[in-house]
Amino acid sequence: MKPESPDHDQELRELGVSRGFSILDLVLRMVAVVGTLGSAVVMGTTDETLPFSTQAVIFHAQYNDIPTFRFFVIANATVCAYLAVSLPMSIYHVIRTRSAKSRALLIFLDATMLAVLTAGASAAAAIVYLAHKGNASANWVAICQQYQNFCSRITGSLIGSFAAVFILILLIPLSGLVLSRRR
Amino acid sequence: MKPESPDHDQELRELGVSRGFSILDLVLRMVAVVGTLGSAVVMGTTDETLPFSTQAVIFHAQYNDIPTFRFFVIANATVCAYLAVSLPMSIYHVIRTRSAKSRALLIFLDATMLAVLTAGASAAAAIVYLAHKGNASANWVAICQQYQNFCSRITGSLIGSFAAVFILILLIPLSGLVLSRRR
Repeated sequence: MKPESPDHDQELRELGVSRGFSILDLVLRMVAVVGTLGSAVVMGTTDETLPFSTQAVIFHAQYNDIPTFRFFVIANATVCAYLAVSLPMSIYHVIRTRSAKSRALLIFLDATMLAVLTAGASAAAAIVYLAHKGNASANWVAICQQYQNFCSRITGSLIGSFAAVFILILLIPLSGLVLSRRR
Repeated sequence: MKPESPDHDQELRELGVSRGFSILDLVLRMVAVVGTLGSAVVMGTTDETLPFSTQAVIFHAQYNDIPTFRFFVIANATVCAYLAVSLPMSIYHVIRTRSAKSRALLIFLDATMLAVLTAGASAAAAIVYLAHKGNASANWVAICQQYQNFCSRITGSLIGSFAAVFILILLIPLSGLVLSRRR
């Protein structure tokens, strides 16, 4: 008879589930790195010169013209760099599933980065919406009829960023869940 | 001799610290309720008719004219309602400091609400910035010279919202910290 065996078995099983969550954390983080990197690159290389530019005026649109888009690129680059740096920490958590302090730190950093990325993505989305629709009350015209390529690129660049936002919303409670399962 | 006494003392002390964190959580949540409520009300009541309106055209600016501001009001009202509902849960955590599953749930909900509120606040901030500065490349004119009262109200309404964003960034790792302190 081994009296401690059922308890020990259950502990091993629960540790296995927590390790599964840690591996999921690592995979999601990698996807978010790709998403934010893609968004930063697509927005950062958006630059369109219209074919009918006259000698006097060159019709030219660049992400750099709109400060919100500059902020978008900076926010995505920052979060991408952070996520890349957090990968070793995530690997450490797969190995040492029970470590608690480093997970609490990760929750803090993830929450901060979630706010930075969401701010960049939704500020850019507000301007992209304006570029598409314009606003009659404020007398702001839609610019997407002229700058079609510009507009489709800036719209597309939002996708990776918002995907990373959703991943961060999942990553934070995932760490919380593993912490709450410890005994 | 009471052999378990030092351990027991330390456990009580650590429970006290965790309870302190739980009380801080409750207080911060109350401040955030006030912040988001204030933001929603100030933005939601912003409405300006210019004194020099002619018979033909009434110069009139309302938060409702700009979809981003509607989203801002909805986001703030939603997060305010959520925070108010979460207060009993926070009080429960002050009493039952060691409860883990409900804290993990709170981390998930807090993270979601952080994203919603940050999205609303920063999208509105992007439009407020545009209203102040305009954008020459996109041919969007600044409207704040005309609608001064409108502009100062929408700018002021951002304060409570961003304060609540910072509080949520603190609340999430606070729950994580209490979870990581459990043994």
